Amino acid sequence: MPFTVPAYAATSATAPLTPYTLERRDVGPHDVRIDIRFSGICHSDIHTARSEWGATTYPIVVGHEIAGVVAEIGSGVTKFAVGDRVGVGCMVGSCGECENCRAGDEQYCRKGMIGTYGGRDAEGNPTQGGYSRAIVVTEDFVLRIPEGIELDVAAPLLCAGITTYSPLRHWNAGPGSKVAVVGLGGLGHMAVKLAHAMGAEVTVLSQSLKKQEDGLKLGADHYFATSDESTFESLASSFDLIINTVSAKIDVGAYLGLLKVDGTMVNVGAPEDPLPVHAFALISGRRSWAGSNIGGIAQTQEMLDFCAEHHLGAEIEVIGADRINEAYDRVLASDVRYRFVIDASTIG
Amino acid sequence: MPFTVPAYAATSATAPLTPYTLERRDVGPHDVRIDIRFSGICHSDIHTARSEWGATTYPIVVGHEIAGVVAEIGSGVTKFAVGDRVGVGCMVGSCGECENCRAGDEQYCRKGMIGTYGGRDAEGNPTQGGYSRAIVVTEDFVLRIPEGIELDVAAPLLCAGITTYSPLRHWNAGPGSKVAVVGLGGLGHMAVKLAHAMGAEVTVLSQSLKKQEDGLKLGADHYFATSDESTFESLASSFDLIINTVSAKIDVGAYLGLLKVDGTMVNVGAPEDPLPVHAFALISGRRSWAGSNIGGIAQTQEMLDFCAEHHLGAEIEVIGADRINEAYDRVLASDVRYRFVIDASTIG
Repeated sequence: MPFTVPAYAATSATAPLTPYTLERRDVGPHDVRIDIRFSGICHSDIHTARSEWGATTYPIVVGHEIAGVVAEIGSGVTKFAVGDRVGVGCMVGSCGECENCRAGDEQYCRKGMIGTYGGRDAEGNPTQGGYSRAIVVTEDFVLRIPEGIELDVAAPLLCAGITTYSPLRHWNAGPGSKVAVVGLGGLGHMAVKLAHAMGAEVTVLSQSLKKQEDGLKLGADHYFATSDESTFESLASSFDLIINTVSAKIDVGAYLGLLKVDGTMVNVGAPEDPLPVHAFALISGRRSWAGSNIGGIAQTQEMLDFCAEHHLGAEIEVIGADRINEAYDRVLASDVRYRFVIDASTIG
Repeated sequence: MPFTVPAYAATSATAPLTPYTLERRDVGPHDVRIDIRFSGICHSDIHTARSEWGATTYPIVVGHEIAGVVAEIGSGVTKFAVGDRVGVGCMVGSCGECENCRAGDEQYCRKGMIGTYGGRDAEGNPTQGGYSRAIVVTEDFVLRIPEGIELDVAAPLLCAGITTYSPLRHWNAGPGSKVAVVGLGGLGHMAVKLAHAMGAEVTVLSQSLKKQEDGLKLGADHYFATSDESTFESLASSFDLIINTVSAKIDVGAYLGLLKVDGTMVNVGAPEDPLPVHAFALISGRRSWAGSNIGGIAQTQEMLDFCAEHHLGAEIEVIGADRINEAYDRVLASDVRYRFVIDASTIG
């Protein structure tokens, strides 16, 4: 039987988020019903709630950094039991059959992954996300949150964590490698923690030195201001890998110049407009400019296990649901260290 | 004792190339004097002769696809003997001490490689290239041309060959990989031959189908016109590697869409202007846009040996020196299949 749960929804591109009653699907044979305990606020939520990434269908419940506890399982569920601590990230389904799904890269599903919100589920119904008290998800897209990570600091790992973990692993960050992280926000602070835990030498490149003390505490070895022109001279040809977490328009060529021969800069955020890049910046050092989108389910589990092993979680500010709109304003003003997390018990 | 040799030089950005008498340095202990037999015409020669890549110092003798025979060796030379068949490519020196030189990537020397023309040699004298009867080069930058490749078809391998061989090797073109070559000119035709010989499945992406028959004969398995919009739909997410040999402005994002997950597009030519690229094209498939510049000396030798083993040379049109200016016009009109090579015996 479908059931209703309290949620917070955007009803138009300009309206503030308000309490809303959401219908969830019946728990099918392979489904898990999760009582949501915490839900992180990601910048993508704001873009979607405000129709900044194409036309959103309203009302929409956003949120794809979900941590909670299994409340019910379908008859065919084998991986989870009631009471398990679990998480859900940016996707809740994919075709399962294409070459990318078979390779464990469900996020690059040829038919398109099913987003946790704003997508269409297997029955064609709109998916609704984590700013709610419960969610029903097919078990293959549910992650186990290991003992040793609290649910509140785990929630942001499901997006901010995997989005930075995946490229760090793919491009072999580790002992002996020099990694720069551009931007110290929700994604950036996780990139610093993860790269440091992997054993890399980590440099933060931030607009100013305002968060320098934080950055070093999070695990950075060096911290430079990109507003200082000399940064680009003194760090020329220094890095094996740059993780660019900034979605604003930056001078890509200037950052490419900071890479050693064979170095790669990876964008994990996409500015709305195309960025002008001179091919010479790539050719002159066999450099690469790449992009990366979250990570597959297996790798997301690997990331959670890695975080538990290294006692890592996100730096968070827990808020009640009545402060979501205020939190959005603060995210846009970069006034959060480093992730807002909604206490789901305050919803409804 | 320095000596003079007949050459062809550009004396200004607008003057046609004319006969010129060039002074070459004395053969030092580690130098090899090469009697040049053939010298390829590369588009870079035209850019430099015409000051299109920064201000050229005149008079200049261009040419960096040099094949000839050793005529004299210095007292300390160990690798070559008089009579050896040899070649010289785009560089004649580097610092030898930086991390890139030590790694065999002299083309990415931190102090800058010494170009075969338009550079400054160890003594600070301007370097002058291959449109001449002889050249003196330190033995470490001289390549051996194996038996089984004629000198005329070998000459273009020293630039067009290594420029395409290097990224094909670096990004693992081979059996099971799908490689696209954008543009079927001097570089493109070598990319097709080399990728085919490495065992890859090769597709040519050319503006029109004008050279289709040639492309298939050179080793391409498929041939598509990029002027046909449907090409970009039907080939979406198809390739592991794209070698872009076109220096003109192209829609990089459209080509990135032709890459599979984890695919790479490599520019080997740099358009003058920056290219606008939407990061989403990279993020949506963990794709990379990269660049590559010629190849190191050891890899250039490896390429020549590979070509000998596979009986590969460039497709050429041999010309007398008095036709250099006409050849330049034809290169600019893409009217060459696929490389002009100057018969050096006609110089002077």
